Amino acid sequence: MWNTKDKYMSEKTIKELGEFGLIKKLTEDVVPMHVSTRKGIGDDAAVFDFGNNETVLTTDLLLEGIHFDLMYVPLKHLGYKAVVINLSDVVAMNAIPRQITVSIGISAKMTFAALEELYTGIKLACKTYNVDLVGGDTSSSMTGLVISITATGIATPGTVVYRNGAKVNDLICVSGDLGASYMGLALLQREKKLFEEDSSFQPKLDGYQHIIEKQLKPEARNDILVSLQKLEIQPTSMIDISDGLSSDLLHICTESKVGCRLYADKIPMHEETEKLASSMNIGSLVAALNGGEDYELLFTVPVDKYEKLQQEHQISVIGHITEASEGTKLVLSDDNTVPLTAQGWRAENGW
Amino acid sequence: MWNTKDKYMSEKTIKELGEFGLIKKLTEDVVPMHVSTRKGIGDDAAVFDFGNNETVLTTDLLLEGIHFDLMYVPLKHLGYKAVVINLSDVVAMNAIPRQITVSIGISAKMTFAALEELYTGIKLACKTYNVDLVGGDTSSSMTGLVISITATGIATPGTVVYRNGAKVNDLICVSGDLGASYMGLALLQREKKLFEEDSSFQPKLDGYQHIIEKQLKPEARNDILVSLQKLEIQPTSMIDISDGLSSDLLHICTESKVGCRLYADKIPMHEETEKLASSMNIGSLVAALNGGEDYELLFTVPVDKYEKLQQEHQISVIGHITEASEGTKLVLSDDNTVPLTAQGWRAENGW
Repeated sequence: MWNTKDKYMSEKTIKELGEFGLIKKLTEDVVPMHVSTRKGIGDDAAVFDFGNNETVLTTDLLLEGIHFDLMYVPLKHLGYKAVVINLSDVVAMNAIPRQITVSIGISAKMTFAALEELYTGIKLACKTYNVDLVGGDTSSSMTGLVISITATGIATPGTVVYRNGAKVNDLICVSGDLGASYMGLALLQREKKLFEEDSSFQPKLDGYQHIIEKQLKPEARNDILVSLQKLEIQPTSMIDISDGLSSDLLHICTESKVGCRLYADKIPMHEETEKLASSMNIGSLVAALNGGEDYELLFTVPVDKYEKLQQEHQISVIGHITEASEGTKLVLSDDNTVPLTAQGWRAENGW
Repeated sequence: MWNTKDKYMSEKTIKELGEFGLIKKLTEDVVPMHVSTRKGIGDDAAVFDFGNNETVLTTDLLLEGIHFDLMYVPLKHLGYKAVVINLSDVVAMNAIPRQITVSIGISAKMTFAALEELYTGIKLACKTYNVDLVGGDTSSSMTGLVISITATGIATPGTVVYRNGAKVNDLICVSGDLGASYMGLALLQREKKLFEEDSSFQPKLDGYQHIIEKQLKPEARNDILVSLQKLEIQPTSMIDISDGLSSDLLHICTESKVGCRLYADKIPMHEETEKLASSMNIGSLVAALNGGEDYELLFTVPVDKYEKLQQEHQISVIGHITEASEGTKLVLSDDNTVPLTAQGWRAENGW
């Protein structure tokens, strides 16, 4: 990895390096790993040979003050997360991430050392997920930090999973646990507020490692794709949960022209999520349904796969698909049924 | 194209539409044209089947206040240019543009009608260059407008042209004319300044259509690729001129480990470029060498193609490649020779 302790480099200013020098320095340790990457950084464009695979492409734009607050997001984590949210979209197509490009708008207050931190996180994510950093763009920014990442992935022809394939009676499944990232953010925001009121205040984050990690350093669930392949289960539809379970399940229902019955007491939640939600008087179900940023996989599988699914404890069955005419329903723990509505918070508060 | 006169839509605010509604409205008339586009807008990622082709991928980040000034750049032109500069990078690899993604950070002051204008330009470029708009991301921006575009292209295996293939004695060629975009910007900036000093001032742009168009609505030179193919000429190296002839020719020399002799009086310039440069006391050679944003193709071809090149008046031979030990030289009109140095203005002033 990039040596952030290199004193000489840390003292170099971004202006001194210039655009080309900057990219070169930040990426000099980047070596393409994949045979599909014919040419990485250093030409007008990257070049790939994807062979007989289908290719997927996704992109996300992250803006300071909208998607992240540098006060409580370490730059290394920010770089890591910025990559992961793109890879999560690739994985949600049932594809294997392969390459990314990274474009950065650099605000005047950023030092070269800060950029190195950001790239350390970006390159760590590349290493973790076995993807090649193949290009991008850098620019000065009049205002805040801008991060735009594009990711590619490959899939064997015929295996890509869309949002529109859910069938009546299919089981609705989700990986991991939900609502943790939202509660992690709520905790960080609470502690930031207390710090702003009293600068001698020490943030209390003990006992909340899981929810903070889900917020600051989420992972793409490519491991779930591997599990599903081992179980010989091909999902009929899939999406990653970025906006919240409600919103993203409604995307599947709308695109697949079906309804759903989602069971509130089947939704997997971590004990830290429930504990903090309780102490902050936030309903944990609200966090799980509408919180977003979980980056877990939400998918549907034929009902005859129910037995097989029991072998993978990382997957929970949380409901089933119905006829569109039956609507999109949430079944509460008292067996009362309410309409499922989208209340994603992404546009206002988050990624 | 999008109907910008639809009164009902013009009155809708961006907030009312929300992120999903906004993308849907802006792209509802977008229909993929290419068989390689298996899935466009509407899922976690776009899906392609590139068959036996090699694929290229490039991306650019454009920020308000750094890369464009909304005071003299009409939004429709901005959208068009933002696409074209990416397609120009694809073309510079000797590849055919196929798909783009567009991510937009929207400042609070932007209306839906303004966004429509931007997208009208984006979609016009897609139509002109026969590329599919397949996805992207939208977000609110705390500050200025942010545009991040990624473009794909395809090439028959073995035909991609890199920066590093120039050989000693190769001819250095350039398409179109140089320096026009820089002089167009100089004109727009001069008129803006006069307007700011006296708001009753009417900008005088008559007689400078070519240089203004090169600045506001440049084109990617895919037509030159077609000409070269007809002439059965495969360039040995190629780059598009975004930073300026000097800087971009030096990229080719550095990557190819060669030197060059560039002849000042062979550099093609439009009469408007020379006329305005003269009236503003700017050396037109400086504009051609260092101006940038020409988006013309700079390439090298074997010397035995000289006769064939004469058939294409859009291509000028401006020098030749030498041994690296001979250095990178500019031959002036008085036969004096000076070192060629990069003085691209991109990082400070331009795209």
